[in-house]
Amino acid sequence: MKNLLDGIEKITFMGPGPSCVDDSVLKAMAKDTLGHLDPAFIKIMDGIKENLKTLLHTENRLTIPVSGTGSAGMESCFVNLVEKGDPVLVLINGVFGMRMQDVATRLGGDVDTLEFQWGTPVVVEDVKKKLADKKYKIVAVVHAETSTGVRNPVAEIGELLKGSQSIYLVDAVTSFGGIEITMDKWGIDVLYSGTQKCLSCPPGLAPISFSDKAVAAVKQRKTKVPNWYLDLTMIMNYWEGETRAYHHTAPINMLYGLYQALYLIVEEGPDNVYKRHMENHKLLVDGLKEIGISMLVDESCRLPMLNSVHIPEGADDAGVRKRLLNEYKIEIGAGLGPLAGKIWRIGLMGHTARPENVQKLLGALKAVL
Amino acid sequence: MKNLLDGIEKITFMGPGPSCVDDSVLKAMAKDTLGHLDPAFIKIMDGIKENLKTLLHTENRLTIPVSGTGSAGMESCFVNLVEKGDPVLVLINGVFGMRMQDVATRLGGDVDTLEFQWGTPVVVEDVKKKLADKKYKIVAVVHAETSTGVRNPVAEIGELLKGSQSIYLVDAVTSFGGIEITMDKWGIDVLYSGTQKCLSCPPGLAPISFSDKAVAAVKQRKTKVPNWYLDLTMIMNYWEGETRAYHHTAPINMLYGLYQALYLIVEEGPDNVYKRHMENHKLLVDGLKEIGISMLVDESCRLPMLNSVHIPEGADDAGVRKRLLNEYKIEIGAGLGPLAGKIWRIGLMGHTARPENVQKLLGALKAVL
Repeated sequence: MKNLLDGIEKITFMGPGPSCVDDSVLKAMAKDTLGHLDPAFIKIMDGIKENLKTLLHTENRLTIPVSGTGSAGMESCFVNLVEKGDPVLVLINGVFGMRMQDVATRLGGDVDTLEFQWGTPVVVEDVKKKLADKKYKIVAVVHAETSTGVRNPVAEIGELLKGSQSIYLVDAVTSFGGIEITMDKWGIDVLYSGTQKCLSCPPGLAPISFSDKAVAAVKQRKTKVPNWYLDLTMIMNYWEGETRAYHHTAPINMLYGLYQALYLIVEEGPDNVYKRHMENHKLLVDGLKEIGISMLVDESCRLPMLNSVHIPEGADDAGVRKRLLNEYKIEIGAGLGPLAGKIWRIGLMGHTARPENVQKLLGALKAVL
Repeated sequence: MKNLLDGIEKITFMGPGPSCVDDSVLKAMAKDTLGHLDPAFIKIMDGIKENLKTLLHTENRLTIPVSGTGSAGMESCFVNLVEKGDPVLVLINGVFGMRMQDVATRLGGDVDTLEFQWGTPVVVEDVKKKLADKKYKIVAVVHAETSTGVRNPVAEIGELLKGSQSIYLVDAVTSFGGIEITMDKWGIDVLYSGTQKCLSCPPGLAPISFSDKAVAAVKQRKTKVPNWYLDLTMIMNYWEGETRAYHHTAPINMLYGLYQALYLIVEEGPDNVYKRHMENHKLLVDGLKEIGISMLVDESCRLPMLNSVHIPEGADDAGVRKRLLNEYKIEIGAGLGPLAGKIWRIGLMGHTARPENVQKLLGALKAVL
């Protein structure tokens, strides 16, 4: 019987995720499974929590990985907080803002949106006006919009919300591990991320963090969380305290992978990791310029780890991506929504953000175009 | 910096899950990550679907692993089907029946229950009477009640429902891969399982299967599925058809593990696997009898893969389990709910179900007691 796993080839991931994974992370995932209540495993869980808190600059006790991919992180943040009729403001300038709107609406939230052109950032002044008009239980924004490569002004929006009753909810799926996030200083109450972007772990887990204010809001719900699997009031009893209460069986080996991925970042030094992202981003932008490829996003709000570039005139979008994958084993991303066919998305996330990968892609692009 | 992963020891899992994992499954998870839209990965996805269908004896097109642990499988089955006020009947004789009730209630279902004593099976005659009184949209039962070791009469309940409008929903978390399930023949419409029981893959995925009748019910919903992450109307577009539409980033490396775990079962031959479970179960029961340990569940409805045994008089429940883990590296399970302190749960799931493990446990129990 043919085993399809035998044919797996190593791909250089330079798209919107997954990113390249260090061999030590893959090896970690192949370690012997432990029981989900084994004292040795609980120490590993505690290690993950500590490193997440360190990297996010937060004191939040409820800082844990959710047992699902990044979108499960989004789901868990909204489903624990939104009750029917709750006023929610979602700031949208790309696919992942739209997804937040969809999630909050499905949960019965009274969802308002402020929309901005894709490829440009959220305008803080507009948010300020909106907040002057109406009080929101939740204000949500995407830090790094993976669909466009825009960095939104998360700190500045946080300033507007300080001292208010609103819960400030941030999607950090693509930013976490690639640019600094100072969660507590910026006034972020709730944050979610994924493992397969700048943390450079395979997809499968979603780090989240809830401030005490956000936890209090969950505890003050009038109705039970309409999602047993992601009910944080139960999950926190498994991740905290002396007696760890079984909720669902944790994805043990995925958690080994996340432990190792966080270990690598802490060992390299977070500041060095962010610097490496920025340096390789600059190397890429300069190299692309030389071959006549320009950036979609203005330098002032450009992300280092997700580079949206205009597809050069006359180039065959899908054909080029296919040749890069088949001939050079490099994956880059297509445009989404209104940007489909207009841009490519070049990722420099986590372990991918290295000069040899930038040079490899530039060489391949030169050959293919 | 100390790396906690260096200290992981191999445990013999003889509890209610996780089960022992074959080295080839662990190695599969350490293979290079592929993109979630890479044609090579899509072939692996198709291979998983085919083997799930083969093992479940079903033609259901929607037979896929959900991106979460077994409880996410439960959540996805209920959240896609239950709308506010829908009549649901849950048959309960243990923790996992109760959990179904909780999930369906949170989703606004009008939930009735029929309860049976823990350690005994669902009585088909009682179900028949209940169904004569009221029509239900969903009738739900646990096949293998992991909290007690009871096999419920799933085929017989299926007979009662044939030709009705009801959707027959079965929890096969602990049964799948350990005893035969003939999904279509038994009239099961919806089934969920987990990977860390008799499939002997680390926890992290939940195989599910929906009949065409169940898929039609999902498509006829009046409201959107109140869970974006688990919305099968979108997820099926990623797992089916020529064009695979991105929904969320699949847990790639976990899926490698499941592919390999299913591969091993198909290679050994499902009938041989079920026979191996039964033979080792008998070996265990005989051996336990010799040392004066008796079974909770009557032979007529005993599960081979989950053996609930009375804790011998005078034995220290937690103390014995702790010594087994620390001195013999064997994990067995405690009792839950009304059976806490009264039983141990000895698992013989998947790769664990081997004579050398049975002998190892019997030897350790003799020494410790």
